[in-house]
Amino acid sequence: MSIAEDIISLERAALDRWCQGDPSGFLEISAVEVSYFDPFQPKRLDGLANLTAFYETLRGQISADRWEMIDPRVEVIGKAAVLTFNFVSYSGGEGQRMRWNCTEVYRWDETNWRIVQTHWSFTENGR
Amino acid sequence: MSIAEDIISLERAALDRWCQGDPSGFLEISAVEVSYFDPFQPKRLDGLANLTAFYETLRGQISADRWEMIDPRVEVIGKAAVLTFNFVSYSGGEGQRMRWNCTEVYRWDETNWRIVQTHWSFTENGR
Repeated sequence: MSIAEDIISLERAALDRWCQGDPSGFLEISAVEVSYFDPFQPKRLDGLANLTAFYETLRGQISADRWEMIDPRVEVIGKAAVLTFNFVSYSGGEGQRMRWNCTEVYRWDETNWRIVQTHWSFTENGR
Repeated sequence: MSIAEDIISLERAALDRWCQGDPSGFLEISAVEVSYFDPFQPKRLDGLANLTAFYETLRGQISADRWEMIDPRVEVIGKAAVLTFNFVSYSGGEGQRMRWNCTEVYRWDETNWRIVQTHWSFTENGR
């Protein structure tokens, strides 16, 4: 597989677990010094310990019946790989739709790709 | 200067121009294949030509009396540098405050650092 395919595959596997309420998929592939943005934090969250503490509050709370990773793109720069995509999740009987923008920066640590920066935000500000 | 200082200095100079209505500061340091997210786009915007077309619609429209780059952090991975920060701008007589999350991925092209990925979003979803 190409690096791009590896990265997309890693992200999809973590998203599969995330959408079943399991944040460990992302925690297992995040670097110790990971930094994180999402629309609910008062500022950037730094470090795997803080990200773990936050994600544990969500364990078992998230459920999406289905989701789509739209138009993933990977820019490889040596040992860095920048994955960007739009994301749509559907949940609940009414099929509530949520639309996201996502940037994930991965770093090759000689054995694995690890996420060093995650940025989730709402597409069109959630409208 | 360190790479981190170089990157922060580049970003601050572009922000200075941006907040005076001049998007060229960012366009001049963006790579041809730049990708871009902000809260107003229906999906990721790809390529300098598309980013230029969008930014030109904003030329002369943006004015911030003052702004702050909060807690900038740079992760260097070979020829990639990942800058993250929170951003606050103040504008108008009433001092309207806007709060942002920002990720900028820069790539060293042997002469200059160029932005290959920009992600702006609202902190706490703009509340």
